Amino acid sequence: MRHIHIVGIGTGNPEHLTVQAINALNAANVILVPSKGAAKTELADVRRDICQRYITNKTIRFVDYDVPSRQIADRSYVQSVDDWHEEISATYERLFLEHLAEDESAAFLVWGDPGLYDSTLRIIERVTARGKVPLDYSIIPGITSIQALTASHRIPLNLVGKPVQITTGRRLAESFPGIAETAVVMLDGEQAFSKIVDPDAYIYWGAYLGTKDEIIIAGRLADVSERILATRAQARAEHGWIMDIYLLRKGQDFDDRA
Amino acid sequence: MRHIHIVGIGTGNPEHLTVQAINALNAANVILVPSKGAAKTELADVRRDICQRYITNKTIRFVDYDVPSRQIADRSYVQSVDDWHEEISATYERLFLEHLAEDESAAFLVWGDPGLYDSTLRIIERVTARGKVPLDYSIIPGITSIQALTASHRIPLNLVGKPVQITTGRRLAESFPGIAETAVVMLDGEQAFSKIVDPDAYIYWGAYLGTKDEIIIAGRLADVSERILATRAQARAEHGWIMDIYLLRKGQDFDDRA
Ligand SMILES: C[S@@+](CC[C@H](N)C(=O)[O-])C[C@H]1O[C@@H](n2cnc3c(N)ncnc32)[C@H](O)[C@@H]1O
Ligand SMILES: C[S@@+](CC[C@H](N)C(=O)[O-])C[C@H]1O[C@@H](n2cnc3c(N)ncnc32)[C@H](O)[C@@H]1O
Repeated sequence: MRHIHIVGIGTGNPEHLTVQAINALNAANVILVPSKGAAKTELADVRRDICQRYITNKTIRFVDYDVPSRQIADRSYVQSVDDWHEEISATYERLFLEHLAEDESAAFLVWGDPGLYDSTLRIIERVTARGKVPLDYSIIPGITSIQALTASHRIPLNLVGKPVQITTGRRLAESFPGIAETAVVMLDGEQAFSKIVDPDAYIYWGAYLGTKDEIIIAGRLADVSERILATRAQARAEHGWIMDIYLLRKGQDFDDRA
Repeated sequence: MRHIHIVGIGTGNPEHLTVQAINALNAANVILVPSKGAAKTELADVRRDICQRYITNKTIRFVDYDVPSRQIADRSYVQSVDDWHEEISATYERLFLEHLAEDESAAFLVWGDPGLYDSTLRIIERVTARGKVPLDYSIIPGITSIQALTASHRIPLNLVGKPVQITTGRRLAESFPGIAETAVVMLDGEQAFSKIVDPDAYIYWGAYLGTKDEIIIAGRLADVSERILATRAQARAEHGWIMDIYLLRKGQDFDDRA
């Protein structure tokens, strides 16, 4: 049976690679490399750098493929993602049939950890469900952008004994401020933090984490919100793209002392 | 100034080590090794194995130290943790003064990621706040038990576009079922899952993840809850200790289609 390794590669720093990931890449017959358009060539560079540094097995084949783009006309956001996954799964199916012999294995290099806001696994499951290409697959964890954020800011993710909410810009208002004492926000195209009015909230923001272009800003939300908005807009204009994440916090360790 | 590396080592599998962690360990003058009592010698074995495999710099000194135990008499849980941290910070201060020259660096090997339910960072901050030993410190992210859990079960952490709550056994009832569609539960000494009655909840449970003794069980909570309780009790009796974590889920990808 064909085997697919879904390998987490961390979020920009090639030293995020784990020994397990390096071994999995070198054990594959084929590395599948997405072509993602000119705007995000720095991300493609990170992938290429990782392959050059760590892949020592010279018999490995590299196969490029085009990622279909998400169609948004005449459908809801959720429907558009569902349709998109279906289309990518057809691409994967074709790739596996054309480029992998039945006893061979391939690896996907997944940004961060494959479990966190990433759909490679789901799409592989769709390929399996289609039933045309019998497959096995495994997941190699990778350092997430959440961990890159807290490490760079030198902060713990959680307050002592307290919960953490991981959410998206779209859903932030449901949990912070209010329910969550710590919220980590990803996939935020609308800078949801800037709509929060709370004198006790702190923000720890980071962009391009792990890369040479990393920027971090921290402080009381009311004090630094404007600066983050301006920095983000400028960085985005310079690079042509941005990936950012932030942690919002209210409260302190041991403030729940009984 | 003395420098302290707080190095995440993953959760049992020595191959979780990142290249960054390996480099940080080899750059240290001293590795600080906790003696944690006989019950958890398997954990000490993992640390020792990691040092043997990856530390190639022969000039590194290894320094063992006793971790004070947490006093629980006459105080709340939160107070007992606060007092405990204070005591450990005095131990660290002594260690740094006795074993590190002013321009030297030391490394702590932290289970999983240093940001997730771990207090090494907080305790280093207390040492800094005491002001007796000027220090700098840095954090190297590591694979968490959350990632080990989702990778072994081959599941995504989140449903598409939806939030995730990370919480403790103590606080689970506040968020699941009810607020959170996905809850990850750590530090659960009371098997909080077994008190949840919800026919639509699924559980993905794992113990000793990453180690040779890894056990995982998944299914509808109502169907597998008893089996997890029995398996857990037996494993705990055999090993003398257990570390387990689980993910609870309600709902599915795309069930929020508008
Ligand atoms: C599609 S998700 C993928 C997350 C990835 N699987 C992980 O483990 O971090 C993309 C989001 O992750 C965050 N992100 C990923 N890499 C980042 C980086 N290097 N710096 C800042 N944020 C990042 C951003 O919030 C971005 O919108
Ligand atoms: C003090 S916390 C430390 C967490 C660690 N820093 C991490 O990143 O996973 C200990 C809790 O982590 C979880 N845990 C850590 N290692 C584990 C493992 N190998 N298998 C299962 N659960 C684990 C358990 O819920 C345990 O109660």
